[in-house]
Amino acid sequence: MINACVIGLGSRGFHLTRNVLLNNDDVNILAVCDLYEDRVQKVQELIKEKKGNDAKGYSDYKEAINHEGLDAVYVFTGWEWHTEIAIYAMEKGIAVASEVGCEYSLDSLMKLVETQERTGTPYMFMENCCYNKDELLATAMARKGMFGTIVHCSGAYGHDLRSEVSHGLINRHYRFKNYENRNLENYPTHELGPIARLLNINRGNRFVSVSAFASKAAGLKEYIANCEDADEVMKNTVWKQGDIVTTVITCANGETILLRLDTTLPRSYSREFTVRGTKGLYTQENNSVYLDGEKEYWEPVDYNKATIDNAKNYEEEFLPDIWKNITEEQTQLGHGGMDWFVYKAFSDALQNGEPMPIDVYDAATWMAVSVLSEMSIAAGGAPQLMPDFTKGKWHLRKPEDVIKL
Amino acid sequence: MINACVIGLGSRGFHLTRNVLLNNDDVNILAVCDLYEDRVQKVQELIKEKKGNDAKGYSDYKEAINHEGLDAVYVFTGWEWHTEIAIYAMEKGIAVASEVGCEYSLDSLMKLVETQERTGTPYMFMENCCYNKDELLATAMARKGMFGTIVHCSGAYGHDLRSEVSHGLINRHYRFKNYENRNLENYPTHELGPIARLLNINRGNRFVSVSAFASKAAGLKEYIANCEDADEVMKNTVWKQGDIVTTVITCANGETILLRLDTTLPRSYSREFTVRGTKGLYTQENNSVYLDGEKEYWEPVDYNKATIDNAKNYEEEFLPDIWKNITEEQTQLGHGGMDWFVYKAFSDALQNGEPMPIDVYDAATWMAVSVLSEMSIAAGGAPQLMPDFTKGKWHLRKPEDVIKL
Repeated sequence: MINACVIGLGSRGFHLTRNVLLNNDDVNILAVCDLYEDRVQKVQELIKEKKGNDAKGYSDYKEAINHEGLDAVYVFTGWEWHTEIAIYAMEKGIAVASEVGCEYSLDSLMKLVETQERTGTPYMFMENCCYNKDELLATAMARKGMFGTIVHCSGAYGHDLRSEVSHGLINRHYRFKNYENRNLENYPTHELGPIARLLNINRGNRFVSVSAFASKAAGLKEYIANCEDADEVMKNTVWKQGDIVTTVITCANGETILLRLDTTLPRSYSREFTVRGTKGLYTQENNSVYLDGEKEYWEPVDYNKATIDNAKNYEEEFLPDIWKNITEEQTQLGHGGMDWFVYKAFSDALQNGEPMPIDVYDAATWMAVSVLSEMSIAAGGAPQLMPDFTKGKWHLRKPEDVIKL
Repeated sequence: MINACVIGLGSRGFHLTRNVLLNNDDVNILAVCDLYEDRVQKVQELIKEKKGNDAKGYSDYKEAINHEGLDAVYVFTGWEWHTEIAIYAMEKGIAVASEVGCEYSLDSLMKLVETQERTGTPYMFMENCCYNKDELLATAMARKGMFGTIVHCSGAYGHDLRSEVSHGLINRHYRFKNYENRNLENYPTHELGPIARLLNINRGNRFVSVSAFASKAAGLKEYIANCEDADEVMKNTVWKQGDIVTTVITCANGETILLRLDTTLPRSYSREFTVRGTKGLYTQENNSVYLDGEKEYWEPVDYNKATIDNAKNYEEEFLPDIWKNITEEQTQLGHGGMDWFVYKAFSDALQNGEPMPIDVYDAATWMAVSVLSEMSIAAGGAPQLMPDFTKGKWHLRKPEDVIKL
């Protein structure tokens, strides 16, 4: 049994607690923490209703982490607090499950790694997309050589967040201040995590440079101008965050990675996870596979009609068992099931004393892309060198997937 | 009647002569030129059969351009010759229709512009995709405000050319030497031309910087290893051209442009022309439109099923007349009809003494992207500044489309 504290009880924290943690019989929530009292009360009531126990409420994360008898802390806060809280908890020997986000300085990430190495406290970066069906199917196919030598991967965070961002002060959402004050690839890890694992980053390969380019910021301003409930603060906010941020990463083994942050223009959700190799490709946009030797279609539309959703034909041979055996209930627990898998992976590894499947080097390297993108944009697109958080161990570490493929 | 010379009689030159020029009653071919005698003979026979006249054959382009009584020269050669031939012809007062391609130095492009300005000889860059249905439909929608403020455009040259490139010495194709010796975005204009016109480049806007990144080169080597008819030269060639080249262009008015060269890995053809604005998007990949306020679909596959090919619903209101009225015969003349339209635009403008719809500034600016991408890749992705070929006139020139929209 894992005695746990949950810190950060906004929308993501509330839903993860309700849907995932309270459905995991290995987790026992003793303490909850948020800066807002109403959020604390709401989750305390939820725990009482579902489990019968009275979780202690806190507004100070240090006090929460010092609650007696904790094994682990779940960090669901705004991006500004992830690393600081993780470092504090690791110093106390409390295992950390950290939600994803961006970072603000390379120094913080260096300290995150140094603290984990020195204390040995388990730390996992909870990148749910590393456990998603599409990404695992394509990764399994890649591991079995279906795409040949991989030379390029791409992905996006394509999600219309105009309502969430613009109402962030009203809804107490951390995105408002980030979009008001910064201009960067602020949320790279959903698409980058699965790509980095596929390319064996920190495990025989590494990111070398990051270059980023931001379009002008027009989406939020025009959205708010047409927003019936916009207040004066929203209307007068000058947004520094460009609507589309294009980021290119080069890798030591010669691959390139393309990312797109795409959150303030009208669009439907997509991560566009794409793998390109010498023998074939997978692209999530149409959930399609194209293998060398298949008929080449001249017209784009015909091409898509021919291959749209054809990746499902490869599931029987390549889809990992966790997705073959997923229950209907698990699919309902968040983002189609991946939330359940990633949080189960943490509690299983912690209980069994096994290495965390997404470790502090993954966390630091993936979040460093956000910091370096900010530097690159400020420098007119000049490439920024990625620090080696493994301090040379990437030569020695062996490729490993988040689950056996 | 336009008395014309055709230079460069390889595959593209042969097909354009046969399908387009010999079907245009305004064009009279008096001379043909190629370094290879068999190509010259083949086109002479074609002209004799179709039109009855004996076109004079040449192997030296200068002699061909000096053939008596010429009004225009069509340049269908390998990329290395486009600019040199165009400059020579303009000096002689012979109008130039130049096929598309890349360039090798900024100096050549400066000289191309200077020669056109000094001589006043008509010059047109024959970017057929500027006349294609998808691109014109989306551009017309953009001009009418359907997508709001445009902040980002992207496109690709996604075309599996492994067979053509690898057999280039056998088939006398210029791509072989370019792929052997260079590493760059070597063919940007098919996707970039329509984007540049949409963004009013050189007409109130301009490209500011070009950054480019090349993946490793693995596709051709592995392809040739499995090629039954590969000779020793092919097998031993070391290809410098990366498989995927990612290029980002920043614009004076704050837009960003993303290009991908993608010609040596298995894939189907696509240009992926995409327009992103504050009120909606068009993407050629699925020929789909998504407008602000439409239902947001969570799952990528559902999204595509919902919108795939839905751009056709906008044709009645927005499709230009040339595409509404296209004849079945015209669609058979090359690339679905766009070849016919772009070459008709040249002969019409020349006969009517009107400005060329795709001019020397377009040509220089778009081809300069290839040169600057080569410099950027060699400099590890460092941004390269785009020269202003208009020498400041871009402030003054008015937005204009290749046809009235």
